Amino acid sequence: METIGYINTPYDEKFAVPRQPGLAPHAVSTIFFYPPYDDPLAFEGLEGFSHIHVIFLFDRIKKTEFSARVRPPRLGGNRRIGVFASRSPFRPSRIGLSVMKLEKIGKNSHGGVFLVVSGADLTNRTPIVDIKPYVPFVDAVPDAKGGFADQAPKLHEVCFSKKALDDLNDLNFGEIAAIKETLAQDPRPAYKNRGEDDKVYGFGMYRHEIRFKVSAGTILVESGERVTDL
Amino acid sequence: METIGYINTPYDEKFAVPRQPGLAPHAVSTIFFYPPYDDPLAFEGLEGFSHIHVIFLFDRIKKTEFSARVRPPRLGGNRRIGVFASRSPFRPSRIGLSVMKLEKIGKNSHGGVFLVVSGADLTNRTPIVDIKPYVPFVDAVPDAKGGFADQAPKLHEVCFSKKALDDLNDLNFGEIAAIKETLAQDPRPAYKNRGEDDKVYGFGMYRHEIRFKVSAGTILVESGERVTDL
Repeated sequence: METIGYINTPYDEKFAVPRQPGLAPHAVSTIFFYPPYDDPLAFEGLEGFSHIHVIFLFDRIKKTEFSARVRPPRLGGNRRIGVFASRSPFRPSRIGLSVMKLEKIGKNSHGGVFLVVSGADLTNRTPIVDIKPYVPFVDAVPDAKGGFADQAPKLHEVCFSKKALDDLNDLNFGEIAAIKETLAQDPRPAYKNRGEDDKVYGFGMYRHEIRFKVSAGTILVESGERVTDL
Repeated sequence: METIGYINTPYDEKFAVPRQPGLAPHAVSTIFFYPPYDDPLAFEGLEGFSHIHVIFLFDRIKKTEFSARVRPPRLGGNRRIGVFASRSPFRPSRIGLSVMKLEKIGKNSHGGVFLVVSGADLTNRTPIVDIKPYVPFVDAVPDAKGGFADQAPKLHEVCFSKKALDDLNDLNFGEIAAIKETLAQDPRPAYKNRGEDDKVYGFGMYRHEIRFKVSAGTILVESGERVTDL
């Protein structure tokens, strides 16, 4: 499968990546293309579209024997469901599909195109295999029935400690907002969701190690120390 | 790229295949899966979804050198546009993506699953690489801007001659409706669209050779003889 480029996202690791696209709209990402796919001619006309379909590879999933069922986080991680009834990365094709908002079509110093997008739900440096314009009259089916994923997940309250805000001092407003949106979905392993626990969890975002715990339904960010060796 | 199955559609050849999914809703197709992907467990939960994303391969497109621009039929076939601003099959990944309505989850005599779908825009026997549930809260962006393809194409009036109706006598109402929907989009090569010409065009659908011409904006089906050797 030909790889045309890769995406830079705020998510340094799998943990905390939103479970669907669009859930953290402030998370701004950049899609870079390898030559010859960065040719401005290849993107002519894309400026008229507000959204794109990004087709990518779940490259961190090892190819294993086919497993017919998966445990989606949406169902608490305990109930199993068919892999083709899910968006699970553990699928024969290893192909992922996300709708993203196209924020900007940019050019690098060599004249090559890059795309700035928001709402990505991909790990940093995920390989991209295709970009297609989102065509609302065919792709938007607002009255479609969404099975077990019929509604957006419930969001949690997020609070930052004084130390966390100090730690994240070098980030801008949009980056803080993206961290907040990411945490609001409760990124704990699914089987812990909706439960209380005393554990402190951590994940990397914007090269900071975000540490949080959950108390009385609120996500409490305790620290966000800068990671230098990522 | 792992192929999980193939689709049977009414479209015996590339000519006349709708240029986007959903344009010929009466065109009913069946997706068959190779073992082990036909395992009913792999589809558990899919019955709650009304639509699916079908990811397929443009297998009849030869792999050639990368061409940054294409001539989409939507723009009359003369104006060029970037390949990543189009849904053209001539793309590096050769991956296609269509939203289809899920009509039925069926089982064959060996207990293997097949899916009955409508609105397909694929040639008969196109290889399928993945099926994903269409999740409206992430996939439906009704207010997205659709660039040069912002609206569904204008439909033409379609009339059948007495001979054509006699020829298509063995087809049922839904099949005739699908032929009508397919013709209403004027399947002539794009550069002929909206123009008048005296030529008779033909294409295969439901194992009939449909022959038509265009007169005063109306598509006139002259004959639809049964093809025995397809």
